[in-house]
Amino acid sequence: MARYFKSDNTAPVAAEILAAIAAANDGYAAGYGDDDWSQRLNARYSALFAHDVRVFPVVSGTAANALALATLVPPYGAILTHAEAHIVRDECGAPEFMSGGARLILIDGPGAKLTPAAIERTLAANPTAVHTVQPRAVSITQATELGTVYTPAEVRALADCAHRHGLALHMDGARFANAVAALGCAPGDVTAAAGVDVLSFGASKNGAMSAEAVVFFDTARVADFELRRKRAAHLLSKMRYVSAQLLAYVENDLWLQLARRANALAARIAAAAGASLLLPAEANEVFLKLDAGRIQALRDQGFAFYDWGAIDSGEIRLVVSWCQAEEDVEALCRSIRSLR
Amino acid sequence: MARYFKSDNTAPVAAEILAAIAAANDGYAAGYGDDDWSQRLNARYSALFAHDVRVFPVVSGTAANALALATLVPPYGAILTHAEAHIVRDECGAPEFMSGGARLILIDGPGAKLTPAAIERTLAANPTAVHTVQPRAVSITQATELGTVYTPAEVRALADCAHRHGLALHMDGARFANAVAALGCAPGDVTAAAGVDVLSFGASKNGAMSAEAVVFFDTARVADFELRRKRAAHLLSKMRYVSAQLLAYVENDLWLQLARRANALAARIAAAAGASLLLPAEANEVFLKLDAGRIQALRDQGFAFYDWGAIDSGEIRLVVSWCQAEEDVEALCRSIRSLR
Amino acid sequence: MARYFKSDNTAPVAAEILAAIAAANDGYAAGYGDDDWSQRLNARYSALFAHDVRVFPVVSGTAANALALATLVPPYGAILTHAEAHIVRDECGAPEFMSGGARLILIDGPGAKLTPAAIERTLAANPTAVHTVQPRAVSITQATELGTVYTPAEVRALADCAHRHGLALHMDGARFANAVAALGCAPGDVTAAAGVDVLSFGASKNGAMSAEAVVFFDTARVADFELRRKRAAHLLSKMRYVSAQLLAYVENDLWLQLARRANALAARIAAAAGASLLLPAEANEVFLKLDAGRIQALRDQGFAFYDWGAIDSGEIRLVVSWCQAEEDVEALCRSIRSLR
Amino acid sequence: MARYFKSDNTAPVAAEILAAIAAANDGYAAGYGDDDWSQRLNARYSALFAHDVRVFPVVSGTAANALALATLVPPYGAILTHAEAHIVRDECGAPEFMSGGARLILIDGPGAKLTPAAIERTLAANPTAVHTVQPRAVSITQATELGTVYTPAEVRALADCAHRHGLALHMDGARFANAVAALGCAPGDVTAAAGVDVLSFGASKNGAMSAEAVVFFDTARVADFELRRKRAAHLLSKMRYVSAQLLAYVENDLWLQLARRANALAARIAAAAGASLLLPAEANEVFLKLDAGRIQALRDQGFAFYDWGAIDSGEIRLVVSWCQAEEDVEALCRSIRSLR
Repeated sequence: MARYFKSDNTAPVAAEILAAIAAANDGYAAGYGDDDWSQRLNARYSALFAHDVRVFPVVSGTAANALALATLVPPYGAILTHAEAHIVRDECGAPEFMSGGARLILIDGPGAKLTPAAIERTLAANPTAVHTVQPRAVSITQATELGTVYTPAEVRALADCAHRHGLALHMDGARFANAVAALGCAPGDVTAAAGVDVLSFGASKNGAMSAEAVVFFDTARVADFELRRKRAAHLLSKMRYVSAQLLAYVENDLWLQLARRANALAARIAAAAGASLLLPAEANEVFLKLDAGRIQALRDQGFAFYDWGAIDSGEIRLVVSWCQAEEDVEALCRSIRSLR
Repeated sequence: MARYFKSDNTAPVAAEILAAIAAANDGYAAGYGDDDWSQRLNARYSALFAHDVRVFPVVSGTAANALALATLVPPYGAILTHAEAHIVRDECGAPEFMSGGARLILIDGPGAKLTPAAIERTLAANPTAVHTVQPRAVSITQATELGTVYTPAEVRALADCAHRHGLALHMDGARFANAVAALGCAPGDVTAAAGVDVLSFGASKNGAMSAEAVVFFDTARVADFELRRKRAAHLLSKMRYVSAQLLAYVENDLWLQLARRANALAARIAAAAGASLLLPAEANEVFLKLDAGRIQALRDQGFAFYDWGAIDSGEIRLVVSWCQAEEDVEALCRSIRSLR
Repeated sequence: MARYFKSDNTAPVAAEILAAIAAANDGYAAGYGDDDWSQRLNARYSALFAHDVRVFPVVSGTAANALALATLVPPYGAILTHAEAHIVRDECGAPEFMSGGARLILIDGPGAKLTPAAIERTLAANPTAVHTVQPRAVSITQATELGTVYTPAEVRALADCAHRHGLALHMDGARFANAVAALGCAPGDVTAAAGVDVLSFGASKNGAMSAEAVVFFDTARVADFELRRKRAAHLLSKMRYVSAQLLAYVENDLWLQLARRANALAARIAAAAGASLLLPAEANEVFLKLDAGRIQALRDQGFAFYDWGAIDSGEIRLVVSWCQAEEDVEALCRSIRSLR
Repeated sequence: MARYFKSDNTAPVAAEILAAIAAANDGYAAGYGDDDWSQRLNARYSALFAHDVRVFPVVSGTAANALALATLVPPYGAILTHAEAHIVRDECGAPEFMSGGARLILIDGPGAKLTPAAIERTLAANPTAVHTVQPRAVSITQATELGTVYTPAEVRALADCAHRHGLALHMDGARFANAVAALGCAPGDVTAAAGVDVLSFGASKNGAMSAEAVVFFDTARVADFELRRKRAAHLLSKMRYVSAQLLAYVENDLWLQLARRANALAARIAAAAGASLLLPAEANEVFLKLDAGRIQALRDQGFAFYDWGAIDSGEIRLVVSWCQAEEDVEALCRSIRSLR
């Protein structure tokens, strides 16, 4: 599948991670996370985040998000999030399911980003009483569904706002590596140090096979997460193979190397796009607005990508994966320039 | 971990399956089950079962069981099953969770097996009305949690009984390979041809990494399974790596070869046990009753295994995995004989 | 509590209904809806709506709405409704709870009313896939939360739109009597004949004690409603006292007489309000926009009512109950006029 | 319906309670439990139980039980209870529904009574791990479903056992009045002082219309009960009419007078039954074992009652209501004696 820009989760597994899986395939290992690989996760990720964390591996981003949120909010709770969030648009109601029916309260805003002001407005418009659902968490996505990135200061402001109102702050980090690579900060700067309570730390989109980590920065909130994970059938018997991925993923900065490469290629596309660029391409996604003829022309040249937004909006999404062929990116840039 | 007889899900991945995962790691592949590997599952498993089936990969046996059952019963439904069933004792209420609160109605019986008579008695003791939960399914385990195996005739009788009462028949086949190897029949003989509606086809305990298949023999019952799987966060983006396992698992009878080996080794232990054998070791599990001194002696010699049943019952469970070292089995047999 | 315009559910029970309760208190009666009163409901309400209906009494409007919706949509389903709807703002997530986690998709629009165009837009903006919740129902409120009323033609257009997309149409009729009184049509004109599938027929706000009826016009949709009602603890043992209310409520047009009176008094207030009237007062609710000083002045004169909308919006809601004292309404009109 | 011994929930409403409802029908009253009647409940019932309690009115026993249990146990929790309990056999899974899928673990025992020994055995047979549901509550019924009564000492022993294991003790008091009348103790003696955490205090079966009170003796456990009640649609807008029943019910010992009468009549039947009496008739239920011919003879004489237990067991249940006609009881006694 050359010239494929549909999604980063169609990419293969990075060689280092496949090798780690193979290396873990050595004789017996205790089941259900009592293996040596899983047991090293807390220490390894505590070092990574410069913070004492508790880490729980799962196999999908949806599992990470929905289980994290179910731990943060009661069935009658509500989660404030952006209307474009993955938990809203692409998880078939998993947060509602895992939480026992909590509600997502949707907030608009440019770049798929929340702001403290928007949260304040939303809370003011949803005063609580025994007759209402009870807001208990805010969920943001880093990098966002529109390829933008929250700075540490922006996250800090959101965390302060959330905490002031008794809400926990969850971060959906399906593309967390791309965000950190873009920011050039330490991973803890934009999470633990910025007030995030729980992070869905994604790896599957950036070189892993099927591995995500739910990272609790506020370990008091771990609560019954382990029981919820088991009950949702996400406690794998052979967890070592998931944990081995999560260890290899952060070894020698592999995760950031892969993300930096994808981000850099995306930046080339954005540069080529000129005025057709819809949003700053801060991570590995590029959103363009083109007329129908130009979109068709790109497709005729073999480029695969998704339409975005409303039907016939002329908006398209181009996602660059960790292993995108440089020549495909170059070909795309040439085509886009020639269509300008 | 030598002399390890605790569980078969602590064993590593078979070389053929690891190779299949590596072979699948070739460039882009469509996500969420639209890849080539996943697309071949229906045909491959239809051939395997000599029946037109629909197959859905998941990563844990609990997911397979709970999602299958949730498709078969409404929230106010009930599932008749043995009191020793995995869905009762080892899934933290996943069937209740996935179904929206359906009830497990527990039935006793020797060898962890259900009988039509026991189902009839249970239904008679639970007459339905608007005030009661509504039985809608029977779930049996093949091989059972006590290492026994249902014959095709036994399954047929259970299916007829269930269907007569409007109940679907689900089979938890976490150790289905061991059962089929023990029976020497075709896999369809004890499922499709015997009236099973849905099978949780296990592979993880017998050489796969994390792969189970929900196999619908009654495809009209598929209903909303796909939405339920997604909502429970069990639709993996990189599904090809799960499907590749499921294809390799049944290639060249690998699954049966691995199971036959485990069964044969278990039979040796059972033979060595003599009168201390609690139940016929029909598959790869051996249950013994020994006094406390002998149990301790085995442990002192380095054999690892679980106590079973009530505290101080003197019952132990020995599980033989697909890759159990023959010398460990031989050593165990010698020790057991010397303790008789 | 003189000069009380806060809500119509704080009013007492109409004499005719209290008498009917007392009349039902005669010896034994079969429980759980098998009594004579409950058994007459289907025929009585079929006559009322000029349509073959199935009727199920419950004790709260929230129960009627949430149970009706849970029957119409699966756990992974979605319900399109207005952002101001009672099911959104005042039921603590009961629809999510009863349905097993279905989602409310919110739509804006003047007068708290939905339009076919708004439904089309919302569906277009929420294309379905295995990754998304699945729209299955539209819920409208009649009279709306802002005191406006859907005409039969408007309901028909909404029903056609909903059905064209495979969605059921639910009507929250907490103030259905006020709507029908305002329209001057037959109750079936704006429901059965207009394509409504299920109606929450309210009585508690308009003279009953605690009685609402879930009325299925599409009886094929009744499905498992009875089991869901029981499971939610809303099948009362002494159901006769609820059904007796529902029978008395529609006897001799009592429900319409009470509603007409309330509507007429509300109209007087609206007339007095002049330019401060926010919305046409089509039923028994009047929404005004006043400055803070005038609002305080009304309160200083002993009038009790709720602020509405955003904080400091200057919007207030005045609700006229079936038993509102005429002199209180006159006093209110005088005050409003003097403040103009 | 003369000679009617099927159930006590088919009886009418006691005159005192109907009068209290009528007396409450006086003008406006704040909704949702903010009315004067509801506001007096805590003080009134604190006096009744000689303990500082929090009281929440609901309209059905199933609502009381399921909401109380949902407050005590998490979705992955388990409730130990007798296999004959109403929450098991007659609530269509309401406890599972309200709790989000918690499990009922069933215990056998004579007279439908639990014992500390049986609880200990059950807990020992269900050791907890991340793979299992987590026992968090014990639920007993007072008087039991078989008409027996727990003494204060028995309740104390059960409470101590439950608390020692970290379990809360819930009492289903659908026939609590009959139990207290039978014991001749103060209501607090067998609840607050005996270690009960939450009581479903029934009134509907003993003279009320539709009124039950959830009484928290351990007020720290109230937690989110109010939100759960609202979300389950059991917070009535016109709550005053439920609370008025609960106040009248305990005024001048009405509840005990009615229960004593029923108990005394039941005792006459038990005395007449002689050897056919299955169980001591400690409250208002009498269980007999008769041959088929005698059962038919009773029915031929116009007596209405339910068969009990397994089909053709020859067991029947006779329930005496608060308003049972004395001549019916006398006639029944004569018939039973003549059939002996």
